[in-house]
Amino acid sequence: MVLLRNTLKHIVEVLIDPQGYIKTKFKKLAIPSGSLGRLEELATLYASIRGNLDCGIRHKKIFTMAGDHGVVEEGVSAFPRQVTAQMIQNFIEGGAAINVLARHVGAEVIVVDCGVAFPLDEKQCLKVKKVGLGTKNMATGPAMSREEAIRAIEAGIELIEEELAGGLDIIGTGDMGIGNTTPSSAILAVLGKMDVESATGRGTGLDGVALQKKIEVIKKSIALNQPNPNDPIDVLAKVGGFEIGGIAGLCLGAARYRVPVILDGFISTAGALIANAIEPKVNNYLIASHVSAEKGHRMMLNILNKVPLFDLNMRLGEGTGAALGIGLMEAAVKLLNEMATFNEAGVSDPYTQ
Amino acid sequence: MVLLRNTLKHIVEVLIDPQGYIKTKFKKLAIPSGSLGRLEELATLYASIRGNLDCGIRHKKIFTMAGDHGVVEEGVSAFPRQVTAQMIQNFIEGGAAINVLARHVGAEVIVVDCGVAFPLDEKQCLKVKKVGLGTKNMATGPAMSREEAIRAIEAGIELIEEELAGGLDIIGTGDMGIGNTTPSSAILAVLGKMDVESATGRGTGLDGVALQKKIEVIKKSIALNQPNPNDPIDVLAKVGGFEIGGIAGLCLGAARYRVPVILDGFISTAGALIANAIEPKVNNYLIASHVSAEKGHRMMLNILNKVPLFDLNMRLGEGTGAALGIGLMEAAVKLLNEMATFNEAGVSDPYTQ
Repeated sequence: MVLLRNTLKHIVEVLIDPQGYIKTKFKKLAIPSGSLGRLEELATLYASIRGNLDCGIRHKKIFTMAGDHGVVEEGVSAFPRQVTAQMIQNFIEGGAAINVLARHVGAEVIVVDCGVAFPLDEKQCLKVKKVGLGTKNMATGPAMSREEAIRAIEAGIELIEEELAGGLDIIGTGDMGIGNTTPSSAILAVLGKMDVESATGRGTGLDGVALQKKIEVIKKSIALNQPNPNDPIDVLAKVGGFEIGGIAGLCLGAARYRVPVILDGFISTAGALIANAIEPKVNNYLIASHVSAEKGHRMMLNILNKVPLFDLNMRLGEGTGAALGIGLMEAAVKLLNEMATFNEAGVSDPYTQ
Repeated sequence: MVLLRNTLKHIVEVLIDPQGYIKTKFKKLAIPSGSLGRLEELATLYASIRGNLDCGIRHKKIFTMAGDHGVVEEGVSAFPRQVTAQMIQNFIEGGAAINVLARHVGAEVIVVDCGVAFPLDEKQCLKVKKVGLGTKNMATGPAMSREEAIRAIEAGIELIEEELAGGLDIIGTGDMGIGNTTPSSAILAVLGKMDVESATGRGTGLDGVALQKKIEVIKKSIALNQPNPNDPIDVLAKVGGFEIGGIAGLCLGAARYRVPVILDGFISTAGALIANAIEPKVNNYLIASHVSAEKGHRMMLNILNKVPLFDLNMRLGEGTGAALGIGLMEAAVKLLNEMATFNEAGVSDPYTQ
């Protein structure tokens, strides 16, 4: 609790270009004013978060946060539980989608065991921050204790602190956890104060009957555990997941050290909802990479007041959308840093003639 | 005319994954089926165009096609005419937005003088395919002769043929030409059979009065020249531009050699409309990178039946959207080529249990 409390104390509101330096720099670049659209907004946000006009992006890290979920006992996923650990092995061997996309954008993948149901050994690219051997089944009681929820969040904060020394200019969030759209939908329903049907989608590919079952399981879990919508840590404990808490911690830790966070899809944004409810000042540090095909994700983004950069019908998780978002953010920052001005390029500027 | 006729004769319809090999390969990858969304569609299209399941993208080239426009005499642009040539110098020196974004995605920029109003010497990264010293003022007569229109298109085809030897796996289109949203809007109005108001936007930043003037100029040009909407070469000649013809030629030439084309924004898509009207089989070779903030672009994309990959409120041209699109296409193709299958990764597949 000390780490979390201390982190929250140090998160400051992002002021967007308070002196107008970034706007002035963009005005001088040899392009029609405003013609870079959201790329200009992205670069402005990045430089504002970093507090530095001449900021480059060198150290890009994607945290793929893994955990298992007791609620899979209820049959809420198309995949068996052991796939979480199997996919971690795939991440380590570099054969997963997140590995391909991270290589494409020059980012490092750090896989984190936040609470996988099997023991895993720490490896070069696997960090073990295990809070438990999977959560408990939230349909029969709380997914975890309040202490475990705090521990999960603090694990995410620790990851940021551990990576800072080696350089950390931007992070992407990601997730792996069979069953984890179920707690994510529950978090959306509770924090968004909305009905479970609207918050619940097909996950990895449930059919109509299985989807109905999943909805009933989430309703039952909320009715049984009565998570307090005004206490995000209580929500995380009652109907959340270890990797979701870890992602919330990444958001808070990154904000505390002024590192921009590129959010992935549905599960990552559930983590961001928790973080944002704990400390709303975190909001401006968060960038939504894409809107997922998973039902409910757009509603999460609306709650956070985010417009996604991509809408590609993706629903894989792992950090795949975040990887694409990191690539786009880097492009935007390079434009701010590398383009010639009207003067340098000897181009006639219609505004100064 | 021989080159154009010969090119058209050799363009074949793209069959999307006719044997289902690509679909089968994606089904084996260790991800929930369909979870890569449009990235799977993109990779499928790419491999279908190339006719090769194991195709990588190595040689990426963006053609920034430049030309001047007689119609700027009418005051249709916020920038003075000499900016076209000044920006070409900026492209050569590597300081423009397209240079930054092309470097970001590992693409080469080839700047092409399709008809700039000033003499330019060929350089390493500047090709001279000059059809004329700028088009004539379409408000007082045809922008160019029919022969010049064909010559402009053939220049684009020649560029493809010249680059094939060095390797050409994907191209991006781009444009530079002060005043060139005016002919692009005219092309949209004529080929899309729509009113000029709906097809005309603010270009580099016209205010309301200047926009109204631009609309009147386009109306007058169409009324005076009577371009035949069923003859795209006539439309290009009467109300087009040399770089727009060149872009149409790039589309046709690339299709003839089965090279995917990533379209940039409003001006590039005007060129694509000409190409698509000349030979509709070109359509499947074209990928829309983004939807521009320029009014009318979305209507162009609707005519071509394209859903853009990005919607970032950009309106710069040069090939900047195309560069981002190339990066995304490469990501998609890498996923198809580099991901592990369920078998290779030792991951339980719910569909084979």
